[in-house]
Amino acid sequence: MSFHKLANKRFSVRKYKNTPVEREKILSCLEAARLTPSACNSQPWHFVVVDNPEEAAILADKTTLPLSKLNQFTRESPVIVAIVAEKPNLSAQIGGMIKKKPYYLMDIGMAAEHFCLQAVEEGLGTCMLGWFNEKAVKEFLSVPAKKSIPLLITLGYPEKELPPNKIRAKLEDIYSFGKYGHLDTPHSSALDVRESLKE
Amino acid sequence: MSFHKLANKRFSVRKYKNTPVEREKILSCLEAARLTPSACNSQPWHFVVVDNPEEAAILADKTTLPLSKLNQFTRESPVIVAIVAEKPNLSAQIGGMIKKKPYYLMDIGMAAEHFCLQAVEEGLGTCMLGWFNEKAVKEFLSVPAKKSIPLLITLGYPEKELPPNKIRAKLEDIYSFGKYGHLDTPHSSALDVRESLKE
Repeated sequence: MSFHKLANKRFSVRKYKNTPVEREKILSCLEAARLTPSACNSQPWHFVVVDNPEEAAILADKTTLPLSKLNQFTRESPVIVAIVAEKPNLSAQIGGMIKKKPYYLMDIGMAAEHFCLQAVEEGLGTCMLGWFNEKAVKEFLSVPAKKSIPLLITLGYPEKELPPNKIRAKLEDIYSFGKYGHLDTPHSSALDVRESLKE
Repeated sequence: MSFHKLANKRFSVRKYKNTPVEREKILSCLEAARLTPSACNSQPWHFVVVDNPEEAAILADKTTLPLSKLNQFTRESPVIVAIVAEKPNLSAQIGGMIKKKPYYLMDIGMAAEHFCLQAVEEGLGTCMLGWFNEKAVKEFLSVPAKKSIPLLITLGYPEKELPPNKIRAKLEDIYSFGKYGHLDTPHSSALDVRESLKE
């Protein structure tokens, strides 16, 4: 599958089948995440996989808000994965401090996306969650208090395999050539690329 | 190409051929980045592509330090892409404020990696740079002062296409099942997955 196809096929799955996920498939997603690049090859991540349905349901409760529909779908997810931010190596720490940029967050975004892209190859669906009660999640997963969990990922067999139409900005609106805001590629080139990518 | 193969093939390319990169290929990488997921579908990114060799060389100078070897390779890169962080939409802004998490950095990490993975499919190489003189880069690219540039990406035809051996933590050291630090998958399963992924 071409990368464009894979990226198009990945979508935020919010309805899962009531089917357990094989550990081999979970390990395959983790292997994809392992290959992710990171600042100074720091690899500042650890994945806690909750694939016991009862424990996943308890974890799901920590992603919702009373009287709100937010994240209610997580209760159906047979697996929830927490990405714990580990201390970056010294070079990444010093670089991040001097440049005032938490590189590890970009690293963790990349690793999460590697995980989710491999899930598509395995016939699985995912949804990344940034909104949850981090303190409660950490306590439940025995994660040391001083570490953080930037993201959770739900994982399972999607009820529907076909993604909805992706809602994204137009290609020609997300780039410039040479200077910010300067579009010097003929409009049609961008359109041609999009056309040629349609199947 | 399977995603594992693609992820294995991507490496930080620090030697480029003196060959221009076709705009069609750059647009294809941008299209892959366009498909990236983001918090609240905020898509907080804009890509400034510098593919004029003289301008790329000026930009390269803003990634180095006097008397240091750091990022010297950027001078050989025929294309440098700056990722500008755009204001997230209101939901992502409010969520990020309440949870004290700059979601946009994770989003930008993912988009950068989409760009780099597609580059591999196009026979191109990339290297992400987090260390550069951001103020000078913004001035050169006419990026408004209040916006930030979390990452630069060098892009070009790699002198060598074969990646070096990837240095990464072992698979069994980056995950736990159930609770943090708790490995209850037999060690061999993780090893089997790695063996089956070797070609």
